[in-house]
Amino acid sequence: MQTISIIGGTGELGGGLAMRWAKAGLPVIIGSRDAARAAVAAAEINQAAGNELARGMDNLAAAEAGDIVVLSVKFSHHKATLEQLRPMLKGKIVVDTTVPLVPPKVTRVQLPPEGSAAVIAQQTLGEDCRVVSAFQNVSAGSLKHDTAIKSHVLVTGDDPEAREAVVVLAEAAGYRAWHAGPLANSAASEALTSLLIFLNKKYKTHHAGIAITGIGDD
Amino acid sequence: MQTISIIGGTGELGGGLAMRWAKAGLPVIIGSRDAARAAVAAAEINQAAGNELARGMDNLAAAEAGDIVVLSVKFSHHKATLEQLRPMLKGKIVVDTTVPLVPPKVTRVQLPPEGSAAVIAQQTLGEDCRVVSAFQNVSAGSLKHDTAIKSHVLVTGDDPEAREAVVVLAEAAGYRAWHAGPLANSAASEALTSLLIFLNKKYKTHHAGIAITGIGDD
Repeated sequence: MQTISIIGGTGELGGGLAMRWAKAGLPVIIGSRDAARAAVAAAEINQAAGNELARGMDNLAAAEAGDIVVLSVKFSHHKATLEQLRPMLKGKIVVDTTVPLVPPKVTRVQLPPEGSAAVIAQQTLGEDCRVVSAFQNVSAGSLKHDTAIKSHVLVTGDDPEAREAVVVLAEAAGYRAWHAGPLANSAASEALTSLLIFLNKKYKTHHAGIAITGIGDD
Repeated sequence: MQTISIIGGTGELGGGLAMRWAKAGLPVIIGSRDAARAAVAAAEINQAAGNELARGMDNLAAAEAGDIVVLSVKFSHHKATLEQLRPMLKGKIVVDTTVPLVPPKVTRVQLPPEGSAAVIAQQTLGEDCRVVSAFQNVSAGSLKHDTAIKSHVLVTGDDPEAREAVVVLAEAAGYRAWHAGPLANSAASEALTSLLIFLNKKYKTHHAGIAITGIGDD
């Protein structure tokens, strides 16, 4: 079975996804700049999931050991992290969850000149990696609960096969997930996050998300 | 009661919105480059709505006569239309529905360097107008049917009062509508349209839309 490594796996989004994948029976590696912190987080996941599918490593070792590598770091660390990990990511599917928020105005869409963080990732990693973008609109808090999740995951990427692998991962984490087009379309998912943060403030919630309507029975 | 003028009102989206507003009892003016075509479209709306709330005019007269002016033209005509109508739009709320599609790759997000069509509109019209962005993700086909609409409308704009007026208009047309932040956030709504066109093709439908989850009971 393929191992999923999560760079920044001790964060709220990365840790929440790791928990859901471990509970679904998938082997996960928690990556962190601090291997000891990663080991603690992995132990917590194993206890909660009732299995031994999670391990902790530093980010470099995690990137090396994973078959699919999920990137869950702040936008300010995004490009430097990718440059550092590039040698370990060759030939792999890299799942970019990064949202290009520009504090302090996080409720305002401020996409980078390249169009999206995911496009920056593909440009940084080059042709050897297949970058797929997903999970930008996930409420990290909602990952902790075992209740059904109503929000959907938009999956974008230029390689349909790699995209399909990430659709399957999102479904394993409990989401309805969609093939949402080429990697350039990550601009939509990334922009939506600022809009959802605005909705959270305006409508006094923490879990605003999006769903696709008009397909099948929905 | 405020009159809503729709520039490009003989198109599928503009015409569909006009029909729904007229059925909801709101006076509408159909604007078209061809006044005779606008008159025919208005007559059809009056017949379908069973009232006399729709009138047809050329775009210039429509822009002059409307209290709120909805812009529903192709991106390739967007800026020129705004420049032409600018003198008539002073002091008004302008609702921009434009999606910056760049044919032939309409399933690929290709936002303009300014960030969004709505931001271009505000820059073109200047401080005298309050530009509000909405309806980019509406399936024009679904407007024709009287069935309940499941997709939501994201309303963005820098002036909260103008935004509220457009939220009310969207609700009158049968949509759940949200205050979705500053005009810059129109980048999200505009980008989403290419993604929805991709979903329509991939999942063989015509009515892909988006809904907000995680607020209230949803």
